[in-house]
Amino acid sequence: MTIVHNPPRPDIDVLRAAHAEYIVSDLDRARAFYVDLLGLVETERVGERLYLRGLEEREHHSLVLRQGPEGGGASHIAFRVAAPDDLERLARLAQRDGLPQRWVEGEEEGQGRALRLQDPSGLPLEFYHEMAPVPRMLQEYHRHKPVQIMRLDHFNCQVPDVTHATAWYQQALGFRCSEYTVKETATGEELWAAWLARKQTVHDLALMNGVGPRLHHVGFWLPDALAVLRACDVLAAAGYYQCIERGPGRHGLSNALFLYVRDPDGNRVELYANDYLTADPDAAPIRWEVDDPRRATFWGAYAPPSWFDEAMRVSSIDGDGVMPVRDPVLRDRPEHVT
Amino acid sequence: MTIVHNPPRPDIDVLRAAHAEYIVSDLDRARAFYVDLLGLVETERVGERLYLRGLEEREHHSLVLRQGPEGGGASHIAFRVAAPDDLERLARLAQRDGLPQRWVEGEEEGQGRALRLQDPSGLPLEFYHEMAPVPRMLQEYHRHKPVQIMRLDHFNCQVPDVTHATAWYQQALGFRCSEYTVKETATGEELWAAWLARKQTVHDLALMNGVGPRLHHVGFWLPDALAVLRACDVLAAAGYYQCIERGPGRHGLSNALFLYVRDPDGNRVELYANDYLTADPDAAPIRWEVDDPRRATFWGAYAPPSWFDEAMRVSSIDGDGVMPVRDPVLRDRPEHVT
Amino acid sequence: MTIVHNPPRPDIDVLRAAHAEYIVSDLDRARAFYVDLLGLVETERVGERLYLRGLEEREHHSLVLRQGPEGGGASHIAFRVAAPDDLERLARLAQRDGLPQRWVEGEEEGQGRALRLQDPSGLPLEFYHEMAPVPRMLQEYHRHKPVQIMRLDHFNCQVPDVTHATAWYQQALGFRCSEYTVKETATGEELWAAWLARKQTVHDLALMNGVGPRLHHVGFWLPDALAVLRACDVLAAAGYYQCIERGPGRHGLSNALFLYVRDPDGNRVELYANDYLTADPDAAPIRWEVDDPRRATFWGAYAPPSWFDEAMRVSSIDGDGVMPVRDPVLRDRPEHVT
Amino acid sequence: MTIVHNPPRPDIDVLRAAHAEYIVSDLDRARAFYVDLLGLVETERVGERLYLRGLEEREHHSLVLRQGPEGGGASHIAFRVAAPDDLERLARLAQRDGLPQRWVEGEEEGQGRALRLQDPSGLPLEFYHEMAPVPRMLQEYHRHKPVQIMRLDHFNCQVPDVTHATAWYQQALGFRCSEYTVKETATGEELWAAWLARKQTVHDLALMNGVGPRLHHVGFWLPDALAVLRACDVLAAAGYYQCIERGPGRHGLSNALFLYVRDPDGNRVELYANDYLTADPDAAPIRWEVDDPRRATFWGAYAPPSWFDEAMRVSSIDGDGVMPVRDPVLRDRPEHVT
Repeated sequence: MTIVHNPPRPDIDVLRAAHAEYIVSDLDRARAFYVDLLGLVETERVGERLYLRGLEEREHHSLVLRQGPEGGGASHIAFRVAAPDDLERLARLAQRDGLPQRWVEGEEEGQGRALRLQDPSGLPLEFYHEMAPVPRMLQEYHRHKPVQIMRLDHFNCQVPDVTHATAWYQQALGFRCSEYTVKETATGEELWAAWLARKQTVHDLALMNGVGPRLHHVGFWLPDALAVLRACDVLAAAGYYQCIERGPGRHGLSNALFLYVRDPDGNRVELYANDYLTADPDAAPIRWEVDDPRRATFWGAYAPPSWFDEAMRVSSIDGDGVMPVRDPVLRDRPEHVT
Repeated sequence: MTIVHNPPRPDIDVLRAAHAEYIVSDLDRARAFYVDLLGLVETERVGERLYLRGLEEREHHSLVLRQGPEGGGASHIAFRVAAPDDLERLARLAQRDGLPQRWVEGEEEGQGRALRLQDPSGLPLEFYHEMAPVPRMLQEYHRHKPVQIMRLDHFNCQVPDVTHATAWYQQALGFRCSEYTVKETATGEELWAAWLARKQTVHDLALMNGVGPRLHHVGFWLPDALAVLRACDVLAAAGYYQCIERGPGRHGLSNALFLYVRDPDGNRVELYANDYLTADPDAAPIRWEVDDPRRATFWGAYAPPSWFDEAMRVSSIDGDGVMPVRDPVLRDRPEHVT
Repeated sequence: MTIVHNPPRPDIDVLRAAHAEYIVSDLDRARAFYVDLLGLVETERVGERLYLRGLEEREHHSLVLRQGPEGGGASHIAFRVAAPDDLERLARLAQRDGLPQRWVEGEEEGQGRALRLQDPSGLPLEFYHEMAPVPRMLQEYHRHKPVQIMRLDHFNCQVPDVTHATAWYQQALGFRCSEYTVKETATGEELWAAWLARKQTVHDLALMNGVGPRLHHVGFWLPDALAVLRACDVLAAAGYYQCIERGPGRHGLSNALFLYVRDPDGNRVELYANDYLTADPDAAPIRWEVDDPRRATFWGAYAPPSWFDEAMRVSSIDGDGVMPVRDPVLRDRPEHVT
Repeated sequence: MTIVHNPPRPDIDVLRAAHAEYIVSDLDRARAFYVDLLGLVETERVGERLYLRGLEEREHHSLVLRQGPEGGGASHIAFRVAAPDDLERLARLAQRDGLPQRWVEGEEEGQGRALRLQDPSGLPLEFYHEMAPVPRMLQEYHRHKPVQIMRLDHFNCQVPDVTHATAWYQQALGFRCSEYTVKETATGEELWAAWLARKQTVHDLALMNGVGPRLHHVGFWLPDALAVLRACDVLAAAGYYQCIERGPGRHGLSNALFLYVRDPDGNRVELYANDYLTADPDAAPIRWEVDDPRRATFWGAYAPPSWFDEAMRVSSIDGDGVMPVRDPVLRDRPEHVT
């Protein structure tokens, strides 16, 4: 098992997790969930896509809802890069590593030329630099809903081989590891999950051992714990209590106050507050054992089985075929699931 | 100076502070302030009156906005009594004490027969028992605005002679005193202000030394300090920052986290959280000296002069003539104004 | 089934739920839990008893921890009455109803003469009027712990026959019903649980259908939801995560933000915020169906079986024999347990 | 006036604002203020210095209190760099720019070799790479005080020529500008103040027009607004209400919920929450006009004169002589002071 501590500055400069595209079966119903209840800001609706963003975000979108024949699943997750040249370097990297890739342009409103590729686990990634600026709603408090989603924070993915997947993000793209989970075995320890970051938060991307490639959730950041509780109240009052899957609780790993909700198509989002800043790239990653009861939920509660077993299928970057999944390398479920 | 400690149970059973009627010059503008920004619930608009209530309230209205030729001022403040008979007993009390009185019926939507009288200081009081029930919005969280006003809590009035006024509320109506402020003088101590309650909170009615009779503010109760801060954000974002007169701060007296705002006609409301329960009628009133810097603002900040000097003129109960005011008996302004 | 709506003012004036005595096997360990972690204020320790109170309380104690040979269980729950004469009237009531009773004096520090009786379900009640005043810690913020327990709020008891028990509290002692739960049956509806109040909160006493007489929990009131979350963090950080039994969540019934914790002897307390004021004695009780999923937890989560099955055994008032329990009249467990 | 938008990656990699050293006249008294009340963690006390840190910090210290003959003032502010080589490059930069410099080693506990230099305005800067790791207290919730200071966030300095000073930090050290304030004049606009960042928050360093070089305050980050309010309560309860200089309020610029407090020697710290992440280096700086009333305090309140006029004198890096100050280039005080 290898966690690279403080990887060298790569020649490709990925800035941050930026947006995801979810497939929904009914755009109006999804809009009611994400805009009317959770308070995401609607930038615009064009054709089969609805473009949403958080209150402090200044770019066109961080969540795209796309009408599909069947709801559920994610077509891609996107990272922003520092400069157009980074896209060219990414194309060469994909070629070097034998990864499927495709340039897209004009497919998403507001976004410039972008590169899509299938990462070594099969996750559909998009990289872009240009995105249309939009007004920041942070101080438009009179237009806020009670739940205040500030910004997209991270992606959490299930992959069959976390060790292999983590190595690629660290070595090829310079992701730092903030925290990680291991399983002790007779022959040493195996990497169960890794929290990887480019921006200075706990993570942009978490990789968890599991049936994959699948997107487990997109995490959105809220300003405080009370905003997370308001999400529970608002969803329940509107009749969506069954959408509350897990939480509120506190993760030991990341220290986040969390809530997991499922949209009407079963897509999962995490509402997330109270993590910490990671401004020192050389800070030692924090190590947790997978069966430490406080790692998953600091307060000791168990996650429901659905949280462990269910995740969003992802698309292949050529057309929208769904990527096949494989069983994970590590087969035991942790006593307290992640 | 006399504070009656634990007055005997009176034969008139006043339950609580219940509603006030403010005069505004533009109902639409006032509605935007109280409903769209502060989040009060609109029960209905009938003629020149708009009826509003808080989220946990189950009666037709706790704030009435009435269109007047000139905005500013309050026509009356109202208390609910336990039974219709209490109204008859109040009429006899008013007669005994030589107070102007008038029965009203059908003047306010949703309210049964009511008695109005001018208290010994000249404050226009209304007493009623019957009020139409309306749905409680407490758990309709998906319809809440960011500022969550739960219920009307209290009235705060300026009167020229606090000692005299307090004695009447204690002796005639059985108000308990929870806290009070004195000014030490060469000859003893004088009562500067008194916090009086019938329901089990810190107060239903505060009486402060000052030019009066005037209504200083109506206090509304919010569930926590963050809701008070959101009121600041919402008002400022909507361009109403000049309506924020004082706070946020904490009162030493009552322990309340407070914010004072002025509506577009200059009427004042307090947004108020974090006071305490007063379930023991025989608890000793808490005594403060008027110049204790932590009494008015526990954190030590000064109130602006407007907070001390300005208050709402009140109406006479026969027609809407404005009650004349007198100068207070105690003339010195406290170093840290109340 | 009978819920008395707005019972007449009784000749016995019970003010409020006041204190409970828990039996613990190790006073030092219990002190660490209640004082060092949960932040209750220690008034004094005398002999085998430790006297605790909340931050806004002005009486000697609201929770007594008593060293016993075996930990777990409650010796009595206590209500304060308005005057010494109420105790005499209670003694006559107990005689009328054939309830065991005993006068106690000098047994609890700070407390005057008190009457203990076994209520019709067998619950050990204490009634008292006199209690030594102590300094209020509400504004001693520099001495607060992160968890801020303000005051004892209520008792929740399991009794075999809720209908019978409720009728006694309403008719003999004038408790108002704020909310209640029914089970619809072929022949009508049966009372599953009732929330009964003397002070102006949602309740002083909840009676739930179950094996009894048992004390399910004592509820303490906290100022806001964040204080409840801090309790989770503090308990977990200190290694007590297994003491967190249920929550944080929101009750539909009462609207409370709740957390249930078990002390090291298994005694249960609820940390509780965000309920509402009940200042109108004639407000209609709110009715819930026992299988409404939002009644127990508004956000839809299930309570663990221990919460339903386990409760504290209570003592008989003569000596400390443990009261025998009976099975409840209503036998089905609700789908979403209370 | 020149704000460099998205400066090129410099060859010197400054990571973040890291610590400051304040001079106090009584270490025990200062410890009571910062540790007992504000809840900073004491790492150790060695000789005349007390080393403190925030709850989420993993390095030896972020605030040093040093006993001096007279209290008040700051000996230096320190930035962490990414690698030891950055220190060598800084030494060459100082030589190029004719800035006084001095290597220090062993002067501060826990810190490796460091370079001190006087910046072009005369501010005493320290740069270091190595600092001893210490346990993070973030999840030691049972040891937290009510006020939870998470980490040092930024320095705010007054300098006589903001335009000149800003250019140096942008061009020599690659600081990005997140927000800035201008004064419109007949001949264009002048830079009044600039918020500059290396880490991904709103700022590591704010430069304000004023008598300088002086350190106006060190800003510490708190997890939410309630923690800031608790600081008010704790300070006031302990008798330090006069230490609360300004706030709580919200800055328009940065969106921060702020509180300014003065320690017993008059040194100023800001308690600060609710700013936002700045993960896109090319995001356009946000422009404010100096007389926009919502810039300084979004809610419209005025800052007290002391906040504008008073700041901490700073030391020269050779010995501890106090740096002389100069009047600012821009002389008008803003209507609403920054």
